[in-house]
Amino acid sequence: MKKRLFTPGPTPVPEDVLLEMARPIIHHRTAEFMKIAGEAEEGLKYLFQTKNPVFILASSGTGAMEAAVSNVLSPGEKALVIKGGKFGERFEEICSSYGIAVVPLDVEWGKAVKPELVEKILTQEKNIKAVFTTLCETSTGVLTDIKSIGRIIQKFSDTLLVVDAVSSLGAISCKTDEWNLDMVITGSQKALMLPPGLSFLSVSEKAWGKIENSKLPKYYLDLKKYRKSLEKSDFPFTPPVSLILALKKSLDSIKEEGIENIIKRHKILAEATRAAVKALGLELLAEKPADSLTAVKVPAGIDGVELTKRLKEQYGVNFAGGQDKLKGKIFRIAHLGYFDKLDIVLAIGALEMALSELGYKFELGAGIKAAEGVLLKKD
Amino acid sequence: MKKRLFTPGPTPVPEDVLLEMARPIIHHRTAEFMKIAGEAEEGLKYLFQTKNPVFILASSGTGAMEAAVSNVLSPGEKALVIKGGKFGERFEEICSSYGIAVVPLDVEWGKAVKPELVEKILTQEKNIKAVFTTLCETSTGVLTDIKSIGRIIQKFSDTLLVVDAVSSLGAISCKTDEWNLDMVITGSQKALMLPPGLSFLSVSEKAWGKIENSKLPKYYLDLKKYRKSLEKSDFPFTPPVSLILALKKSLDSIKEEGIENIIKRHKILAEATRAAVKALGLELLAEKPADSLTAVKVPAGIDGVELTKRLKEQYGVNFAGGQDKLKGKIFRIAHLGYFDKLDIVLAIGALEMALSELGYKFELGAGIKAAEGVLLKKD
Repeated sequence: MKKRLFTPGPTPVPEDVLLEMARPIIHHRTAEFMKIAGEAEEGLKYLFQTKNPVFILASSGTGAMEAAVSNVLSPGEKALVIKGGKFGERFEEICSSYGIAVVPLDVEWGKAVKPELVEKILTQEKNIKAVFTTLCETSTGVLTDIKSIGRIIQKFSDTLLVVDAVSSLGAISCKTDEWNLDMVITGSQKALMLPPGLSFLSVSEKAWGKIENSKLPKYYLDLKKYRKSLEKSDFPFTPPVSLILALKKSLDSIKEEGIENIIKRHKILAEATRAAVKALGLELLAEKPADSLTAVKVPAGIDGVELTKRLKEQYGVNFAGGQDKLKGKIFRIAHLGYFDKLDIVLAIGALEMALSELGYKFELGAGIKAAEGVLLKKD
Repeated sequence: MKKRLFTPGPTPVPEDVLLEMARPIIHHRTAEFMKIAGEAEEGLKYLFQTKNPVFILASSGTGAMEAAVSNVLSPGEKALVIKGGKFGERFEEICSSYGIAVVPLDVEWGKAVKPELVEKILTQEKNIKAVFTTLCETSTGVLTDIKSIGRIIQKFSDTLLVVDAVSSLGAISCKTDEWNLDMVITGSQKALMLPPGLSFLSVSEKAWGKIENSKLPKYYLDLKKYRKSLEKSDFPFTPPVSLILALKKSLDSIKEEGIENIIKRHKILAEATRAAVKALGLELLAEKPADSLTAVKVPAGIDGVELTKRLKEQYGVNFAGGQDKLKGKIFRIAHLGYFDKLDIVLAIGALEMALSELGYKFELGAGIKAAEGVLLKKD
């Protein structure tokens, strides 16, 4: 059976990038590899829209989330964590593991945080050293207004803004420097169109000030080690050579398409997906949906677990289900990375057929019709 | 130019394993992937010669070294670190980062620790909670008598033995359970014949006792999370899918050849290499050399940095130089993983030609003659 991934990580990897993965291993301390790594680092700055260094870690995205916490804070310090889903909660768990006093900002799953609330809390609570949030909360598909929060953070000279952009960077606009984002995090298996195994982290000048004084223990994730090595286009620990060759290839194609075009492409695909599911009488979970993935409420009378199972087993189409409290209640169609218009047609076609088989009542083709309407208009 | 890696990581990757790296990405939470991961975990138990779980981390070997420290100890506890090279020193650095009181056992670089000294220190110093050591110290090629240290550790019910076997497991005998090794660590880019990006860590029952009570902060490297996921053949964080497909392939070939045969093969290759360099009038660095890599002193009158540079640039042959205080003073020929007899002939041939060009006096072919003598005898 042909298999198609529409999960918010891992995402499909282009064939030419996969072939890079099969190249013979070269040593990481050779001119040949260092040139490739140096070019990849420049490509990452372009993707992150930053002049600051972007570090490459051999870890999942969570490793970079932990690095953000353990490198900038000290025991007992206070952090504001915006919690509107699983990955907001993960920031809280990481902070708690390190003895950070978490001020939680609970947001209903599916809703977006109001930036003015962030400002209010930062003003009321004294000494919040960092705000942890997501650009797109992968578990709900909600987009956070990071630009506005970045504007607010500017007024707080002793507070950093750390953004988990794992399921969004390279699909949704994220202007690291222009928006005053101190640390932006992503992973390889999302919009970067790579296999899992790498994470990435940008660090602002303001963040370095805190890193110099951080008293939390770390070694493998110690960013000072990475900065020192980066000066020589090197890594403190043996890097995943194959993944970095693939990264270079992928970043080349990102540069060729251009970030603004990539963002526009994702916007069209997301709009088509949203139009399609609405035309099928389905409801979106996210109040403000991100363009990287679409979370859809499972309609009454349909078993959500059965729906994603059927899509996978009968059609080879892998949508993500809901996580934790949303298990069985939503499904998520990811369209970040290596996706085009016809992938959306295919995904909606699979959804229509599976829904029909499960007894959901709608006019066959109604979703495709709505999607095609959007896909034809925007170009 | 054809390029050949004789570095102690990364090592050459077999062609069929490289092709696994190029396979389309499958989602990690599918029956297809979980089956492969489950088989890889069984293969790791065979390789580690343990009945206990072996965890797969997305990190370099250093990540697993840190996991060993941060999962079993608590702030202020005492650890004995055997320091006879760069990786012994790394254990000390990691412990110090976490506020562990390090009792260092300094061993001259190139010498092997005397196990009775370990016993003496464990008896004199009270409350040493863990001993950190290397099986083969990658920076010197020295083999530690882990079997004897394992026997000693049995007498100390509150002390764990943690072994960095990064440049040795799968090349040199390492009987995890039989020798009472509480944690054994390796990386993908060594004898496992894989690209860098994964590390592995076995955990004994005795070690779990300490893990339950450890008070050091951790999240991404928290082994309790990995244990909980492993019960469902799952991972707590998105695993590097491609590397795990390749791991499965590599472990299949390891099982096919058989560990005892693999160890015998490495012994022959190492003996041939040692015989060759001695026949060239060169001296080994290691008092007790491991069979995974051979560290050789650069002869008087020859510039060691120039030698490895020439080998790389003129012959495409990548030997490792010396690290830190041994820089320029030694070179290291690795022969762990995907190596056979003719690779040794090739390596010695390159060495002879480069030495000759640099004005070193010896009879051309003398090294090869000695190597072939060994390679012909042992089978």
